[in-house]
Parts: sequence; C-alpha cells; structure tokens
Amino acid sequence: MSFEVLVKDKTTRARRGRLETPHGVIETPVFMPVGTQGTVKTLTPEELKEVGAEIILGNTYHLSLRPGIDIIRLAGGLHEFMHWDGPILTDSGGYQVFSLSRLRKITEEGVAFRSHIDGSPHFIGPGEAMAYQQAFGSDIMMVFDECGPYPCELDYARRSTDLTLKWALHCKRLHDNRDQMLFGIVQGGTFRDLRRRCAEELVDIGFDGYAIGGLSVGEPRDLTWEITDLTASLLPEDRPRYFMGFGKPDEMMDAIALGVDMFDCIIPTKCGRTGTAFTLSGKVVVKNSAYREDMRPIDPGCSCYVCRNYSRAYIRHLFNTGEILALRLVSFHNLHYYMSLITEARRAISSGEFESFRRKVHAQYKDSSLTAARE
Amino acid sequence: MSFEVLVKDKTTRARRGRLETPHGVIETPVFMPVGTQGTVKTLTPEELKEVGAEIILGNTYHLSLRPGIDIIRLAGGLHEFMHWDGPILTDSGGYQVFSLSRLRKITEEGVAFRSHIDGSPHFIGPGEAMAYQQAFGSDIMMVFDECGPYPCELDYARRSTDLTLKWALHCKRLHDNRDQMLFGIVQGGTFRDLRRRCAEELVDIGFDGYAIGGLSVGEPRDLTWEITDLTASLLPEDRPRYFMGFGKPDEMMDAIALGVDMFDCIIPTKCGRTGTAFTLSGKVVVKNSAYREDMRPIDPGCSCYVCRNYSRAYIRHLFNTGEILALRLVSFHNLHYYMSLITEARRAISSGEFESFRRKVHAQYKDSSLTAARE
Repeated sequence: MSFEVLVKDKTTRARRGRLETPHGVIETPVFMPVGTQGTVKTLTPEELKEVGAEIILGNTYHLSLRPGIDIIRLAGGLHEFMHWDGPILTDSGGYQVFSLSRLRKITEEGVAFRSHIDGSPHFIGPGEAMAYQQAFGSDIMMVFDECGPYPCELDYARRSTDLTLKWALHCKRLHDNRDQMLFGIVQGGTFRDLRRRCAEELVDIGFDGYAIGGLSVGEPRDLTWEITDLTASLLPEDRPRYFMGFGKPDEMMDAIALGVDMFDCIIPTKCGRTGTAFTLSGKVVVKNSAYREDMRPIDPGCSCYVCRNYSRAYIRHLFNTGEILALRLVSFHNLHYYMSLITEARRAISSGEFESFRRKVHAQYKDSSLTAARE
Repeated sequence: MSFEVLVKDKTTRARRGRLETPHGVIETPVFMPVGTQGTVKTLTPEELKEVGAEIILGNTYHLSLRPGIDIIRLAGGLHEFMHWDGPILTDSGGYQVFSLSRLRKITEEGVAFRSHIDGSPHFIGPGEAMAYQQAFGSDIMMVFDECGPYPCELDYARRSTDLTLKWALHCKRLHDNRDQMLFGIVQGGTFRDLRRRCAEELVDIGFDGYAIGGLSVGEPRDLTWEITDLTASLLPEDRPRYFMGFGKPDEMMDAIALGVDMFDCIIPTKCGRTGTAFTLSGKVVVKNSAYREDMRPIDPGCSCYVCRNYSRAYIRHLFNTGEILALRLVSFHNLHYYMSLITEARRAISSGEFESFRRKVHAQYKDSSLTAARE
C-alpha cells in the first residue's frame, strides 16, 4: 500500500495523487459515497461502479449495532457481506457515538452508551473500534476519536484532544495488519493551538493518512476554512488528507485547493431521495410541480443512464406518487454527477487549470444552501 | 397482430401460444408484472428485461389521476414516458373505479367519482377509457367494465352484466386503430347463466382477446374454479384468455390447466417489498430474524442476480434497517421466480408433462396462504 502525489497545482495547494489499497487503486482527489449500514442507499454495487465510485464508506457504529460484528465476521468481512469488491473506508464510530447515541459515559477507556435504536447498552473504545474494523476487513480504518461539539469551551476541547491523542496511540499499537491502512484524525475544535498540537502528535505517532475531523459541525464557514487551511498545512505531503463528512460540490473544490485529497458526504444520496438533483447548471428540485410537463432529462448536459432514458416529468411523477424508482434514479444521477465532478477536478489539476475550474463550479452553485451532514 | 395456439396439452386444457404485438412477441402462458403508476415498483425496465418480463401492465385509473393523460400524451405515450419498449397492457380503470374511488355515481354513460387521492371529481366511461388507452398507445386495451362485489344479489349482477356488455359494445365501436388490440371482459359474478350470456355476447361483438373478470374478489375458491372453468370453455380457441389480477404460483398452474393464457398479479412485487421471497421450496420470509446468520442465498436453486450475490443474512439486515435495496432485491428475485415458473410451465406443456409440473408446483406451496390482490 502506498500513496503517491503525481501532480501539484501551481496556483493552489491542490494535488493529484494515487492511493493503493488491497481492493484497488484510488485516484485522488476522491469522493467516497456513504454506505452507512452496508449499502449506499437505494443502489447496488454494480450501479456504484457504473457511476464511477472507486471507494465507499461503511460505519462502525451502525454496523456494530445492526447486523452486529459477529454476522459480518461470519460473512467473511464487509466486502463479502455487502457484495462490494472495491476499497472500503470505515469510520471508527467516534462521530456517531457522540452525535447519535444516548446516555453516554466517557472514560479513558472509551464510551459506554445506549443505542439510538433500542436503548441497549454498548461500549466502544479504541480496542473495540480496531477489533471491529479488523473484522470488517476495511481497506482504510479510522482511529477512535472524540468529536467535540460547536461551540465548545477551551477546557473541554483540550481534554477532548488529549483523549483523542491517547486513543489514537492505542489504536496505532493495535494496528498489526499491513493489509489495512490506519488513518489518524485531527481534532481540536476551532482552537488553532489544539489543532497544531493534535496534528503534530499524530504525525509523530505516524499514520497511513490523516483526517480533518470535528469541522462542519455548526461553526461559521470562515472558521471552517481557517482551521482546514491550518490543519492541512501541518500534515505530511506524502500522506493522503481526508476531510470527514464534507462535500458540497463548490466547497469540495475549496478544500481541494487547500490540499485535501478525500471526501465523503451523504448529500448526493440524501438529496437523491428527497428529490433534489445536481446539474451543470446548479440544483434542480425535480420533485417540484414546475417540472410536471418538462420532458427534458434532469441535466441535458449529462450522459448518465438516468439522463439518457428518463424525463423530469416522469421522475417528478414518480416522486409525486411515492414510487421508489424516483429515489433510485436521482441518487444514481447525483452520484454520477459527483464522480464526474471529481474526475474533472483531477483533470484540471493535471492540466494546470484547477483554479478556473474551481471558480466555474462556484458559479454553478452561487445560490446553493445545502448543508453538509453525516448519517 | 395475431394469436396462434402452438401446442395443446393432452391431459388438461393447457395450451402454449404466441401473441404478436407492435412492441414484440409474447409467448403464452404469460405472467405480466404490474406497473400500476407507470413503474413496476422498485425496478427499472432493464431489470424487468433481465428477469425475463415480456409484457407489463399499466393502469388507466391511476395514470389518469397522476400524472394525467395530458402528460403521457405530451411524452408521446406510455412506452416513451416510462422508458419501456416492450408490450404494455392497460387495465381500463373499471376495477379501480369500483374498488378505490369514492362517492361513485354509475349511469349508462359511465361512472362519476371522486379521486381516492384528493377527492377531486372525475368521470370515466367507455369513451374516456378508450381515449385514454389510445393516448397511452397500449398494445392491449381493455374494455371499460363494471366489476361487481362478492357476495352480490342476482338483480345487481344482472344489471351490472348488462352495463358491462353495453360498454363493451361502445368500446368496440371506438376501436379504430389496428395497432392496438382490444380485449373484452367477461363479468357475471358467480352466476353461471350471466357468465354464459356475457361470454356469448362478447364473442358475438368480437374482440382480440377475452378476460375473465370479477373473480378472486372474495368468493370461495371452489366457486372461482367452477366459474373459471365455465367461462374459459365458452371463449374461442383462437383468442388469448386473460385471468385478471390473479397469480399465486400454484393457482396460476390450475388456471393454465383450465385454458387460461395470461395473468397479472401484484404478489411478486408486493411480497418483495414486504420481505417474502418465492423459492423452489416454497415461501421464505427473508426479513425474519431466523435468517440473521443464514449465509445462503434466498434460493440455493436460483441463478438470478440476487441469489448469485447476496445472502439471506444481508437481505434480512437490509429489511431490519429499513434499507430500500432490500425491497429491490426481493422484488427482483420474486419476478425472476415468476418468469422462470411460467417459462417452465410452457416447456412442460410442449413436452406433454404439464400435469406433473402443476402437481410439483402445488407440492412446493402446500402451506401457502397468500391472497391475490390488485393495486
């Protein structure tokens, strides 16, 4: 397994790279569709390949609750269980334990919590997160971290960063399989000193890649960019950088310009299920009655299966009548859009035109009001 | 367009035939997946072809309410609107007007009713039913009929049969496009004399095919078979016979043995969405926790995409977590099962082994308790 930077942009800090995993090579920058519960919602693995997905996400918190680690182990790992033979990155569960679970009790060893589904008691610490991700056979594992809230007191953020670093070291010591990569996660809230210390200590421990965590959790966008800029600049050039749970089209371009290589976000699939499509002319809320008689495809400039075969009027009808095919078609189109966008971004980096490409994407979304979120 | 009986079974009245339509040839006996609202629920037209569907159903009542005839006309017909280039049969709306709509007022001209969706007022009579189906460009249109309830008084059934015959004649007079077939529908409840009169008068009017309507609406199964037997025997040998809204696997075989050629039923897709799969060993309620650790496919004897790639444990997990892929996978498998079943039935007729095949299917479903229904 290796990561190689192939091209560096001259105007921005964008870079084009290649990451080798046991299940295939990933070109970066890369967008990773989210398969929280062992399925990228509404789609088959074959469809994910058709839209151009190179790597997908799974989530340790959700999968440990349902179906449970024993079932995935019995299946021979997550790839086999869900019938996806490409690379998988799994979140450690840290984010969801703090955002979804109930009655949390945090200790040095980990987090005791109750399931958001049935209230049953569970415990995840660095040891569990590693054991679970090893059972999944994830190509990329994430360390178990504490993702603080925003706003956050300095004292809380400091303790949280200490814990994240302690758990990161614990995870690293348990990392014994070289067929799986392990990424560290930089926390520290919006405090520059904490971010710096967290990044430096993680780099000292040494990981296969580094994630920027704890951002896009409610802070003003200026602060998001300030901290992203700082954090990315503290991470080694020769390791991939992953901005967790982040991915509006225009903002992805901004993060790429700051040197970020990897993204995941539920937006394309969530919007797909709620009737909003991404196009070369911005967003189209295809479920709206405005499209009742519109016989054009979602995006006349798109060559995907959906745009080749279905009209806005038909898709609007499917949403209007509650038909599941609607959710499939727009999810498919949106992921195709994201994959095309990121492929174009890579080309633009290679040809030295990334900055103008970034501006073009911004122009397409100047009225965008989508908010990022993780499931 | 023509219908040809190719092989007649020697033991039963089963027959193997071929029906030509402008959008392709249909081998009979045939099972027609139901696409009530312009989509066979959860699946794409490409997937319908992959499971072997030769012809699908659309519904005039539902499509006239949503998206409305004007939209389908604007799209250039139902095939174009829904991206299905194979044959389409459309129900006339009669059944749904009587089973779903509110505040019905029946006159000689047709039925004034209020939509089951928003209470808006509508009117469908034979003229509307024909105009709508002509706008759809259906390969097979159905006459507008009144489907009576069960139980039903003789007086009501008599008036209803008169009206059905009057409307059938009206539809026939409006049938001016030889690129579309028009089927008559035999009504008459469970009254042998009414069934006989209805069948004979319809045959006198002359249609491209004949449907057996108004059965499987709550009457005892003995009566279903008695009336099916009688009605089928009154219909011409050289026209296809269609048992509307009927299709449990074992019972389809019984109807084929009585000379029925065509079936439609929501069971395979409805069961697909609720977690019951059809297999060569009977039904498997794959969403049950009994399959939590079951790494076998839905049907180890099945070669479909779903059985080649997914375990019961995975599909059960998808149902358990409310994932849409679950509904897709079992719907796909169930339709594949139905198409394989009907293909096998055709082969059995050709090779003179239909009766033993029919018994084999019955043995698979001896504990079946599924009920037939139309959407």
